[in-house]
Amino acid sequence: MTPSVDALRSTLDGRWADVRSSVREQMARFRPVDPGLSVEEYRAKVLELVHELAETGQPHTGFSPEYGGKGDVGGVVTAFQALGYGDLSLLVKAGVQWGLFGGAVQVLGTERHHERYLRRIMDGELLGCFAMTETGHGSDVQHLRTSATYDPVAEEFVIDTPEPGARKDYIGNAARDGRMAVVFAQLVTRGESHGVHAFLVPIRDDGGAAMPGVEIGDCGHKAGLNGVDNGRLTFRSVRVPREALLNRFADVSPDGTYSSSIENEGRRFFTMLGTLVRGRISVAGGAGSAAQKALALAIRYGERRRQFADPGTGEETAILDYRAHQRKLLPALATTYALQFAQDDLVAEMHRLQAPGAEPDEKAQRDLESRAAGVKAIGTWHATHTIQTCREACGGAGYLSENLLPQLKADTDVFTTFEGDNTVLLQLLAKNLLSDYGRSVQKLSPLGLARFVGAQALDAAAERTGVNKLPRRLPGRGFRPRDRAEQRRLLADRAEHLLAGVARRLRPALKKGADQFAIFNAAQDHLLDAARAHVDLVVFDAFVAGIERAADPSVQALLETVCDLHALAMIERYRAWYLEHGRLTAAETRAVVAAVNDLCAELRPHARLLVDAFGIPEGWIACPLLEDPAAESGATATVPEMVG
Amino acid sequence: MTPSVDALRSTLDGRWADVRSSVREQMARFRPVDPGLSVEEYRAKVLELVHELAETGQPHTGFSPEYGGKGDVGGVVTAFQALGYGDLSLLVKAGVQWGLFGGAVQVLGTERHHERYLRRIMDGELLGCFAMTETGHGSDVQHLRTSATYDPVAEEFVIDTPEPGARKDYIGNAARDGRMAVVFAQLVTRGESHGVHAFLVPIRDDGGAAMPGVEIGDCGHKAGLNGVDNGRLTFRSVRVPREALLNRFADVSPDGTYSSSIENEGRRFFTMLGTLVRGRISVAGGAGSAAQKALALAIRYGERRRQFADPGTGEETAILDYRAHQRKLLPALATTYALQFAQDDLVAEMHRLQAPGAEPDEKAQRDLESRAAGVKAIGTWHATHTIQTCREACGGAGYLSENLLPQLKADTDVFTTFEGDNTVLLQLLAKNLLSDYGRSVQKLSPLGLARFVGAQALDAAAERTGVNKLPRRLPGRGFRPRDRAEQRRLLADRAEHLLAGVARRLRPALKKGADQFAIFNAAQDHLLDAARAHVDLVVFDAFVAGIERAADPSVQALLETVCDLHALAMIERYRAWYLEHGRLTAAETRAVVAAVNDLCAELRPHARLLVDAFGIPEGWIACPLLEDPAAESGATATVPEMVG
Repeated sequence: MTPSVDALRSTLDGRWADVRSSVREQMARFRPVDPGLSVEEYRAKVLELVHELAETGQPHTGFSPEYGGKGDVGGVVTAFQALGYGDLSLLVKAGVQWGLFGGAVQVLGTERHHERYLRRIMDGELLGCFAMTETGHGSDVQHLRTSATYDPVAEEFVIDTPEPGARKDYIGNAARDGRMAVVFAQLVTRGESHGVHAFLVPIRDDGGAAMPGVEIGDCGHKAGLNGVDNGRLTFRSVRVPREALLNRFADVSPDGTYSSSIENEGRRFFTMLGTLVRGRISVAGGAGSAAQKALALAIRYGERRRQFADPGTGEETAILDYRAHQRKLLPALATTYALQFAQDDLVAEMHRLQAPGAEPDEKAQRDLESRAAGVKAIGTWHATHTIQTCREACGGAGYLSENLLPQLKADTDVFTTFEGDNTVLLQLLAKNLLSDYGRSVQKLSPLGLARFVGAQALDAAAERTGVNKLPRRLPGRGFRPRDRAEQRRLLADRAEHLLAGVARRLRPALKKGADQFAIFNAAQDHLLDAARAHVDLVVFDAFVAGIERAADPSVQALLETVCDLHALAMIERYRAWYLEHGRLTAAETRAVVAAVNDLCAELRPHARLLVDAFGIPEGWIACPLLEDPAAESGATATVPEMVG
Repeated sequence: MTPSVDALRSTLDGRWADVRSSVREQMARFRPVDPGLSVEEYRAKVLELVHELAETGQPHTGFSPEYGGKGDVGGVVTAFQALGYGDLSLLVKAGVQWGLFGGAVQVLGTERHHERYLRRIMDGELLGCFAMTETGHGSDVQHLRTSATYDPVAEEFVIDTPEPGARKDYIGNAARDGRMAVVFAQLVTRGESHGVHAFLVPIRDDGGAAMPGVEIGDCGHKAGLNGVDNGRLTFRSVRVPREALLNRFADVSPDGTYSSSIENEGRRFFTMLGTLVRGRISVAGGAGSAAQKALALAIRYGERRRQFADPGTGEETAILDYRAHQRKLLPALATTYALQFAQDDLVAEMHRLQAPGAEPDEKAQRDLESRAAGVKAIGTWHATHTIQTCREACGGAGYLSENLLPQLKADTDVFTTFEGDNTVLLQLLAKNLLSDYGRSVQKLSPLGLARFVGAQALDAAAERTGVNKLPRRLPGRGFRPRDRAEQRRLLADRAEHLLAGVARRLRPALKKGADQFAIFNAAQDHLLDAARAHVDLVVFDAFVAGIERAADPSVQALLETVCDLHALAMIERYRAWYLEHGRLTAAETRAVVAAVNDLCAELRPHARLLVDAFGIPEGWIACPLLEDPAAESGATATVPEMVG
């Protein structure tokens, strides 16, 4: 029995359902902006919307109650994702203002900063920037070149851009609207550098003129997000008071003495970065909304668009009834569901760790950062690929801006490389997995270790020879692609095996005098596969847990089928690995492919329900593409092109 | 020994090298247009460029000598591809004017049309449209709904748009500049329909006002190509003289008698379409230029962009030295080379068949159409994927319009669905392959047929059981991934096996009363794989033949390595298939993966040479992305993020 759209939606909406519905209701006016606007018109329009958004009170939700916020960290990130159904320039500009700029002041600053700035930031009176990335350093932010040198006489920091490559680049809110910036720079006091710290630096006066010593450039027209004013900042001996240092984790006394609660410089830096995990989780959420919107457009079009007459009936066939079209859209839809549940888990865990009064939990925080990095990478790549596929699935209509897909593609394209380049994020995740793995291996008893090493050696031998080992399941038991435990075993086995293998390959790098780069580089692809396989497992587990939470049995039943399609599409994608490593026989991988085809056919009648359940406000998605067929079918019978 | 860039370029330039260099020299002024322009400014600018282009005389090249052309069909398509390094709106508008509109008048019209229009079309005085696609019918053009009904009293055709879905849509040159259109419509005379024919219909007067009965709409802002004025045409009983019929293949006498040199309606229609194969070949060429330009940008950036210090040297590493980055760009570069040689073969064959005085050769023409369809599909998907990868490989810089990649992505995105949707084109190819295959099977002797069927049955059994058969090579001989014959055997084996399998699956559709659609649809993915595998083989063979044509041994040696990377990257992509079908063992597919890694490292030092050899005018590619490193390296040594 088919679930109602409301039952399915409330399962998807999850814990912050009320936030999602209030965004849907309140914010109907934030519908996508006409992409034909000039850059300047678009920026002006989005600035207006930012102020309107501030008036709704939504952005306050995430900030401390003592300054008028609600401390609802999970709620604000959920609201941010819901905004992603609308104009993505507004989404990103809001993210810069309240997530990155406001978030940095909140979590890296202390009372002196909160007292002075938080209210004005929440209300959108004080617009600001998050100035971390430099022209020469985007991924390797630990080696930023901007410097902040303490002058004990004036009790001021002097901010400098020592070289062209140290210019702050791609900074949102910088080209036009920002008045202040959180600037990340190498802190130097008493001739000693203490690594990267954050400083609050005024960049424009109230009239909007650049402050003395601050040079502001404009990144100009971009592929998308042209409602966001990205710019460049260069500092020429810009002086700010000692109190401009966001001093939650480290401070400098008037006489220039440096102090920090965290000894190790690297650890201190990554602790500061870690508090900003919200940005990555938000981007993953925005990517999810964009993919959901693209699928809603393509699937509704695929149901009404007819092409080529069925020789049997003479009626033209809806393109979503073609297997190739189902193959393009339905596994992507299933994975979009899976990622939504993974996103909800991230948000809930972040809320647990960061809501006011939460106990600091370093291990849990680091795990959250790892998972956020992985889900952001996989989720944004999925969105880019899915939106591209949806554009093509709508043909020429999908290329017209009036049908929204072009803007979705262009705006989200940067998601794969900002808030952390996806490849670098997967490496970060892999690094954390490897150190956990290292610890767990060390914990093994001598016997356990011997067994472990032995197993590794066997695996290695099996791979060299290509001899198939028995698939890892109860002997004699047949392969059942739609068995949930079977699916998990396959995904987990791949993740564990890849990680163990890369650990083995990297171990020599720890030897003294080893060419660490050469060893790492030779294993880089292996490393990235291991990280990706881990994320696949995390996402799968989140989906399964989400299904268990569903109250309505008909919702559960439908989601089980969607989960099968997601899981088997993953296993199908990596079936070469399962064959090479003797996990599946050729007959079994072919059964997986057949199961994916069957599941596409099985879900085809529910495709519309599945996209309607995202609850995208109709006003944000209405476009000519979705209007009733302009053409009525009535073609004379014809053998389709392709039957020879 | 490394070849010179000139030697490599002249090999790539091939037969129409002179045309390519004249385009490079003459057309430096056709550099990409500022994407920040409004739609109207951009359209005006591109119209100017179209007139400048006409003045160069380039567009005349392809037309009949008797009207001032050179009849150099291959030359004009080659020039078109070279233009693809510049502004793609100009490329497409020129393609509409001289390729589609002018081409249709040339090949579907007769002297009465040539006399009257060709010179003005060549000179760009008469701008026109190619009005085939309708809102309701894009792929299934045989069932267009626009009608042209002959009125013997007035000796006129009456052009009508019978329903909203019959509106001509996405028509280049329609929204702003076109004065006439070649309109495809169902020809009806004496109450009888004779299928789709082409008519020359005035749509605007000299002042630019729509002609009586012609309603003109504007498709407005698009994902890209905003310098092209795509529009919509609706006809309300628009009368044109009997002579407006482009009557090379069919005519209507004053009294309304229909006559055609081609009896069968379907065959007649596809013959008319076939003469327009030039459009698909041109799009494939344009996609190739765009992919080459994107790779030139990303590879030059990857050589100078440094990130993360090598712990050994303390020097930051050029990102193109990371294996993951090589994996993103170098196989794509190799395939871009392969596709260029396949493109040159298409152009040469088209020239052979269509140059003035060429003997009509129906079989060769049909084979050309098949190959053009396949290479267009694979080439445009490759371009879309490659440009996306290059954008990401340039991080934030790749997202800025000043660095050209956004425009390349947006402009080429529609290539996968216009001039034939790629999926439909592959089905067209598969259909032709199947009928050839059917003929060849019928030619078999009873014994041969029995053997054939037996072999098929064995294959089928082997696949059901997953039992590995011996890899198909001389028994006892080891697997050598870089053996050219071995590579070809693998690619050919896959193509043949897929085709035989799909033929077997579709045979029941020919039985009386069979549910043709259900049978076709269940095999659709199989069918598409068969077509794709065939194209892979065609492209491989073109590359191998191109290497043999190369004069310079050092060029040959380098191209051999590039060809290895292309071939093995293909085999790697499909290695699940080779494993499932017992063509390769697990150890062998792992050897393929290792060989791809080695080849990436081997070609890394030649990457710059390989992109320089495309000969893209520096003025068309110059952008901040390529400027000398703003940042000089000097990071303190650090263990890369990823070594645990």
